[in-house]
Amino acid sequence: MNEEQLAKWKEQRRKRRNSLNHDDLLSGIIKGDLQALSSGITLLESNRKSDQEEAQKLVNSCLKHSGKSIRVGVTGVPGVGKSTFIEAFGKLVVAKGYKIAVLAVDPSSEKSGGSILGDKTRMNDLSVLENAFIRPSAAGKSLGGVARKTRESIILCEAAGFDFILIETVGVGQSETMVKSMVDFFMLLMLAGAGDELQGIKRGIMEMADALIVTKADGDNLIKARRAKKEYENAIHLFPANENGWIPKTLVASALEQYNIEKTFDTIESFVNHTRINGSFGRNRKQQDKYWLHETITDTLMSNFYSSERLVNEIAVVEKEVIEGRISSFEGAEKLMKIYNHE
Amino acid sequence: MNEEQLAKWKEQRRKRRNSLNHDDLLSGIIKGDLQALSSGITLLESNRKSDQEEAQKLVNSCLKHSGKSIRVGVTGVPGVGKSTFIEAFGKLVVAKGYKIAVLAVDPSSEKSGGSILGDKTRMNDLSVLENAFIRPSAAGKSLGGVARKTRESIILCEAAGFDFILIETVGVGQSETMVKSMVDFFMLLMLAGAGDELQGIKRGIMEMADALIVTKADGDNLIKARRAKKEYENAIHLFPANENGWIPKTLVASALEQYNIEKTFDTIESFVNHTRINGSFGRNRKQQDKYWLHETITDTLMSNFYSSERLVNEIAVVEKEVIEGRISSFEGAEKLMKIYNHE
Repeated sequence: MNEEQLAKWKEQRRKRRNSLNHDDLLSGIIKGDLQALSSGITLLESNRKSDQEEAQKLVNSCLKHSGKSIRVGVTGVPGVGKSTFIEAFGKLVVAKGYKIAVLAVDPSSEKSGGSILGDKTRMNDLSVLENAFIRPSAAGKSLGGVARKTRESIILCEAAGFDFILIETVGVGQSETMVKSMVDFFMLLMLAGAGDELQGIKRGIMEMADALIVTKADGDNLIKARRAKKEYENAIHLFPANENGWIPKTLVASALEQYNIEKTFDTIESFVNHTRINGSFGRNRKQQDKYWLHETITDTLMSNFYSSERLVNEIAVVEKEVIEGRISSFEGAEKLMKIYNHE
Repeated sequence: MNEEQLAKWKEQRRKRRNSLNHDDLLSGIIKGDLQALSSGITLLESNRKSDQEEAQKLVNSCLKHSGKSIRVGVTGVPGVGKSTFIEAFGKLVVAKGYKIAVLAVDPSSEKSGGSILGDKTRMNDLSVLENAFIRPSAAGKSLGGVARKTRESIILCEAAGFDFILIETVGVGQSETMVKSMVDFFMLLMLAGAGDELQGIKRGIMEMADALIVTKADGDNLIKARRAKKEYENAIHLFPANENGWIPKTLVASALEQYNIEKTFDTIESFVNHTRINGSFGRNRKQQDKYWLHETITDTLMSNFYSSERLVNEIAVVEKEVIEGRISSFEGAEKLMKIYNHE
């Protein structure tokens, strides 16, 4: 970039920032303007103090317009065909007359430099549709930061009138538990073959799923996929029941052949009916709100502790003493707490 | 209790307290004296400040004599036959020339008034053996408190020369995750029938188990138990692999007919060999020590926050605002943090 280009870029950025003011963004978002929604999410993601204050105002204003979408989490290891599946699903949802937003959660993107939705071209067909909104991964220094940005993005998307919000994540880390705790319905995409492919899926994720979908069920793969579905179905019966009385569904599906994409939609619909009737839909949302209140408190307390100047060198020293069995874990913790509290 | 009895009881208690001094207890414990061990654990459980200081000294002194046992967690819903199984297993271990201690974790005991090992007579045959030590549930106000007492009891038992330490817990709460994080080997006892009986088992526990044992495999029940074992075996193959390379084993067993109790022992032995050879045994222990260091820090930070005078009424108010959608979870958390920090 030469000096002229740099100056032009800075000017553009200045203009863009100035346009990110609360009232314009809010009225744009409520009208369903995608540019305003996009700028609103950019504001959420900014680390500038003044932006953050403006973002909080925006989230609070949007809050009373939020809550009406169906929030769906989608996870699965790389290679399972998540974006192809989401694109097929999204197109169906749009064809039915609904609006769909796709947000991605990828806490690893900071490190790896990659982002699961970074390659926007992956969902070309969906992204050009008027009633679809695709937003690449929110980056953040911590899982807590990513969670916050995602939760707040959901509120903005809902205020913009989206009926379905899909939260996509990779099935390899802590991020599924996080996504599970901010959605109504959680889908796990799986590959047939049930062997090595599963290695990447974290233990416990299968038990969190409301639907388990064996993907790429087309051509030669269909028989294998059906067999895998049957096995998962048997396994699910061994799991303890969900509190909401929902029995997780297993499906085979093919995005390529549009096979069972509609059935996936129907499954979500019948889940929503089931949980709305027995009251667990609303209960779950309230629990999630409460969960995030206390989760954020824990996060803040811990990050204050671990970033304390006084403990910079002490933590590693105490960890070593504990691991070598010179002091107990509990005595180690007390030692660090005393330093932290100036005792 | 009349006045005379009360006076006598107080005198006994005073004498007992005075006998709980560090040096006597330590030398007793190291000699393997069960009375000293028992008094040491009582000291750990005391809430008196002076006792707690003495207890910390004792734990630290025992620390260098600890670490040599095999720590085994046992869980399963009420009715699965935990104590019968543990008794049969314990007697076998003693017959092989080893020493076994059985500790119970029951964080619910405070509320329910009941304790899973409160009824000591349940393990009559085992408890009379010289090389067996049975300790009823540690009570505590919080899961963190119970965890600490149990971890420290393990250290004392190891200093007293026990080869096997069994930690028993009920499969219905957060306590399994806690027990899993303080043992080398984790066993889940299950009933045949695989239906309603599982309702009580928390989701995710099956995936934590290193061995899954279908109990009461005797008489008419044997065929049903074998079928259940087969089903669990199939389910386990669908789970992601353990980091330590161990494939969880499934067994049927009968304490009544002494069937496969020895095989349970062999399974633990082969697990220990497997993980010692690939180094994961020691790695896991170090990770556990580190985990408990940081877990205790989190616990302390949170309990300081939630017991803060300044927040007594505020927490419920903010929770309500969040649940009713008047402010976001994140703004609610910030509000409480500001009050806590006098800002």
